[in-house]
Amino acid sequence: MLGRRAASANPNLLLITLELWLVSGTVEDLLATAVEAAKRAGEIIHSGFYKTKQVEHKGLVDLVTETDKKCEELIFDFLKLHYPEHKFIGEESSAACAPVELTDEPTWIVDPLDGTTNFVHGQVFPFVCVSIGLTVGRIPTVGVVYNPIMDELFTAIRGKGAFLNGKSIKTSSQTELVNSLLATGTGTKRDKSTVDATTNKINSLLFKVRSLRMIGSSALGLCGIACGRLDLFYSLGFGGPWDVAAAAVIVNEAGGLVFDPSGKDFDITSQRIAASNPRIKDAFIEALQQSE
Amino acid sequence: MLGRRAASANPNLLLITLELWLVSGTVEDLLATAVEAAKRAGEIIHSGFYKTKQVEHKGLVDLVTETDKKCEELIFDFLKLHYPEHKFIGEESSAACAPVELTDEPTWIVDPLDGTTNFVHGQVFPFVCVSIGLTVGRIPTVGVVYNPIMDELFTAIRGKGAFLNGKSIKTSSQTELVNSLLATGTGTKRDKSTVDATTNKINSLLFKVRSLRMIGSSALGLCGIACGRLDLFYSLGFGGPWDVAAAAVIVNEAGGLVFDPSGKDFDITSQRIAASNPRIKDAFIEALQQSE
Repeated sequence: MLGRRAASANPNLLLITLELWLVSGTVEDLLATAVEAAKRAGEIIHSGFYKTKQVEHKGLVDLVTETDKKCEELIFDFLKLHYPEHKFIGEESSAACAPVELTDEPTWIVDPLDGTTNFVHGQVFPFVCVSIGLTVGRIPTVGVVYNPIMDELFTAIRGKGAFLNGKSIKTSSQTELVNSLLATGTGTKRDKSTVDATTNKINSLLFKVRSLRMIGSSALGLCGIACGRLDLFYSLGFGGPWDVAAAAVIVNEAGGLVFDPSGKDFDITSQRIAASNPRIKDAFIEALQQSE
Repeated sequence: MLGRRAASANPNLLLITLELWLVSGTVEDLLATAVEAAKRAGEIIHSGFYKTKQVEHKGLVDLVTETDKKCEELIFDFLKLHYPEHKFIGEESSAACAPVELTDEPTWIVDPLDGTTNFVHGQVFPFVCVSIGLTVGRIPTVGVVYNPIMDELFTAIRGKGAFLNGKSIKTSSQTELVNSLLATGTGTKRDKSTVDATTNKINSLLFKVRSLRMIGSSALGLCGIACGRLDLFYSLGFGGPWDVAAAAVIVNEAGGLVFDPSGKDFDITSQRIAASNPRIKDAFIEALQQSE
């Protein structure tokens, strides 16, 4: 297990630590533990998917179900049993509190049910998932995204490739915006400036890309980039790092890039993300900038 | 089989004709034949879903694949074998020709593969389907929408209810816009006035509904209304009657309504459609009108 002292922000030390994990099989253990937690939560989600749900409103259009809470509890209990010294950030436990504080220490960042609105509305959008990411020195290092409805398990360890149900995946090789499938989301904020910015951006981008999809899950949108089903993804103002912590590793390890929609580096605490393959990144950023 | 002379625009005569069919079991035969054709085409779609596709561009963002063509041929051959006297309108065969001419005669209206962009981009959006509708006196009368990836078969006969995989379905009972899940599409036109109208409408509606989805298939969007997974659907400027002919019967028979987004009656040749349950229809139309 990684001691707190080892998890400094020094990149070299982090790499050495990762190597040590790797040699001892501990990174794989971390992944295996996360996968086990995701699968157990996935069973709960799957069994609840077709039932009528008890819904509690967090906000006007944001929903939290009993299933979210139950799954987060299960995942945290399971991970804490194996890694009691690690830090934990979860969507449900964080929602009521102050801004999320991410440190350099190994931190599990969990969204027990990404795509809650899809979950509540039933299976026309089978885009619900468990997202479990581990950051070390704030860098997404282990990622598990599991869609129990489609039975698709996306996994990655930093430096070791990305996989869908055990098979290696890579981003699309698309180089032309006009041939690209773009995905985004509307977020949950409905103030005028947010909604105007959202639709102005869509307006501008619609002239440049092939088509647009909205699926209601950032984690699965990013996994769509990782496995080449989507070419371009961006989201502004999603819930928090739990939506992207796991998928960011998966995209990177699939040969893709995650970045700030402005073109700057991705900041996991910023609630802004874009992703694509490296060959189309510059054109995508230019299009995003022109859409401001 | 219905002779051409019997299929006049006289509504009473049409009802009598339908009754005769019904008594003799012929409407069920029509449905069974359409289901068989859809299932056969579905096999081709399913087997092609994970392969790299040969794509021919119809326009900048509209795609047609070998699979579309192969499926349309299969469906038309099969239906013509059983109903040689009927009329036929298909997406692929119509695309190259003049505007679609719909008469009062029994007419099969077929989209061999709705959701072609999803099909081309792979399975992140499992929203592809075969759509086979029969109009009599221009009224959608038999509808089959089959999604071979999710293995979901939506069926309806006018006056006899709507079904998903044989189980009766009905629309949601949602009465509040703020709790509603809305679906729409961007269409395939990318001229400035169309794109501006599209995003202005989305902007206005985002303030009123819970969330927005774009799935890339009008037929499956409408079936989402029919089985209560979605509450509101509209599309302006879709491809043609083949996108909605089958699903319109399915929505109606599930207790829903299809109508023009302006609130006027639905016109199958207009490339404009909206759908919802009857209780929320007025509020939806008001919201659509305010979004002009």
